[in-house]
Amino acid sequence: MIKSRLLTPGPTPIPERVQQAMARPIVYHRGAEIAALVKEVNEGLRRVFPTEGDILLFAASGTGVMEAAVVNLMRRGDRALVIRAGKFGERWGDVCAAFGVEVAGLDLPWGASVDPGQVAGRLRADPTIRAVFATQSETSTGGLHDIEGIGRAMRGSEALLVVDAVSSTGAHPLPPEAWGVDCVITASQKGLMTPPGIGVVTLGRRAWEATERSDLPKHYWSFRMTKAALEKGGSTPATPATTLLMGLREALAMIHEEGIEEVWRRHARHAEAFRAATGAIGLEVFPECPSNALTGVLLPDSLDARDLAGRMKSRYGIVVGEGLDRLAGRLIRLSNLGYMDDLDVIATLSAFEMVLREMGWASALGAGVSTAERVLTEMKQG
Amino acid sequence: MIKSRLLTPGPTPIPERVQQAMARPIVYHRGAEIAALVKEVNEGLRRVFPTEGDILLFAASGTGVMEAAVVNLMRRGDRALVIRAGKFGERWGDVCAAFGVEVAGLDLPWGASVDPGQVAGRLRADPTIRAVFATQSETSTGGLHDIEGIGRAMRGSEALLVVDAVSSTGAHPLPPEAWGVDCVITASQKGLMTPPGIGVVTLGRRAWEATERSDLPKHYWSFRMTKAALEKGGSTPATPATTLLMGLREALAMIHEEGIEEVWRRHARHAEAFRAATGAIGLEVFPECPSNALTGVLLPDSLDARDLAGRMKSRYGIVVGEGLDRLAGRLIRLSNLGYMDDLDVIATLSAFEMVLREMGWASALGAGVSTAERVLTEMKQG
Repeated sequence: MIKSRLLTPGPTPIPERVQQAMARPIVYHRGAEIAALVKEVNEGLRRVFPTEGDILLFAASGTGVMEAAVVNLMRRGDRALVIRAGKFGERWGDVCAAFGVEVAGLDLPWGASVDPGQVAGRLRADPTIRAVFATQSETSTGGLHDIEGIGRAMRGSEALLVVDAVSSTGAHPLPPEAWGVDCVITASQKGLMTPPGIGVVTLGRRAWEATERSDLPKHYWSFRMTKAALEKGGSTPATPATTLLMGLREALAMIHEEGIEEVWRRHARHAEAFRAATGAIGLEVFPECPSNALTGVLLPDSLDARDLAGRMKSRYGIVVGEGLDRLAGRLIRLSNLGYMDDLDVIATLSAFEMVLREMGWASALGAGVSTAERVLTEMKQG
Repeated sequence: MIKSRLLTPGPTPIPERVQQAMARPIVYHRGAEIAALVKEVNEGLRRVFPTEGDILLFAASGTGVMEAAVVNLMRRGDRALVIRAGKFGERWGDVCAAFGVEVAGLDLPWGASVDPGQVAGRLRADPTIRAVFATQSETSTGGLHDIEGIGRAMRGSEALLVVDAVSSTGAHPLPPEAWGVDCVITASQKGLMTPPGIGVVTLGRRAWEATERSDLPKHYWSFRMTKAALEKGGSTPATPATTLLMGLREALAMIHEEGIEEVWRRHARHAEAFRAATGAIGLEVFPECPSNALTGVLLPDSLDARDLAGRMKSRYGIVVGEGLDRLAGRLIRLSNLGYMDDLDVIATLSAFEMVLREMGWASALGAGVSTAERVLTEMKQG
């Protein structure tokens, strides 16, 4: 018997309660029930970032709401500073370019984290930059960017700060008002413990002002039309993903029962266990400043990540993330994002070190697991 | 005890088998399982229209894939003939206008059906028209447009024919190659018996050629990028709505077990029962040429549709569609779309006539139900 354990950095495992919530009869998307559902989801989401700003929901995955941010906040020919240190930072650039937004790249090696002072320097040097597009947790590397620091460094600038928090929501706080973030985009299938298909946008006052100037073509993604529909009937202009919203409401209830601060602490504790164990196994944590959502482990040339991930799945039923694009074959991404407990971390590490041994890696069996146990007991559950 | 029966023309009831399929553990969207899932869904969808053409899937609702069709097939400043006889025909015009496509409206009273000869006439009179945007089943009125006739009337024209089949898929055939349709868009939450959140596009050769000329900005909706991802790894460029895809695979299995021709016949039989019963109750079927997906019933001034729908819900747990926009208060939409059997039709009609009696309407109790029973027994189940 091999149980299946999906431990990728998205989609993440779905709690039984969320599954059950989605199995309830579907509701009509023009009735009072959907208005109440959207309201509860929005309130639950506000407490996750946390934010007092507007929340808009779209039937879409994360890339969809990245596009929504660009087409609602920018004008054709505007210049945007795009922080790129991985696949998802690069995606901001691709979306901007597709819509005629000029991309000024702030390009770093994959896995590096931007120095907020560099962002400030680029803005001083080029006052035509209208927005900075950043990624809080770069899912392709496991790297974390200091959004609070970037927001502080941008103080006084008129440029907007737009942040992809798809893999950081729930793992790290991102209070947009306190940190000077104008727009956050995220999605349902990672820290929010719900299947993919809901895109989430937070918007502050300056972002709303930008929507008035924006001349990029839009319909499905229109923030103004979406807000108008919410204010009029409590729902969305296009058909909402009702079943997924019922799941998301339940997932948010679970998050707030645990307490959002405890959810952040749990992610910090699990990620620290993965990082310490990686060192004990004799391997290297890849990113310069690692996110608490996932741990990117760089493999030496003697180990192939595809082979390793394949063995973890076939021997132990554990599906982990592999490296993407230029990191294919070289990186393993161990996720502790979303619905994960201490023993999921232990199980992942145990499979990891048993497969490493099988592949000829010389670390002692139990080296990673025992280190993780030490971290987990020291950083006690709240 | 009042059981809840969602009988709106979308979202439609979800079969238990589909619910159970969605409750299975989520799959990784970059693995072999998702490639197999997408392949099975695409094959199942091909047999529904039926088509031999390409199928593309998006995490989005129907309006999203309407936008996808416009931004992939048109150029800025192109002229499009938009057939408008209801809210969703009008939506084609709104999406075109949002992207700088010039709208030549072929405007009919709501509930009317276009004469294909009129489409041909407009194309002859204006050879700059690059595409015709049509709606097979106009969900806001229950009207059906003769897509086969439009396709035949357009033979020899270089204009593309793009059809919204959101509420007709499963209720009416729409074979794009045989009928000269270049692109069909549809969605998961109606005849396909799955919750909302998946948008579907079919594309033929001429549509693919149009994507090469198209200069409208796009990223998330890019047909070419989506096809490339499908050919490369069997999945989608952005995160697919995996759980909904698992549901859709099961719903398609159910459709093909029943047989797609039998599914069409069932919709025809149920819709005929609704229409005949409407007459027996002394009310009027609203559209000129009614769709087999739903029956729009026009109410006399003495009856308010909101009041009637409210009573059907509170007394009998039946949620029906009301009139939208200019038909608010005046139309009731009785749906037989998707997961519906003979007794669902009877239950809807029984609640309808009992509530009508309560509101002072003078038809005999049982008049609608007995007429429906006659139609259902005469047009026997296959």
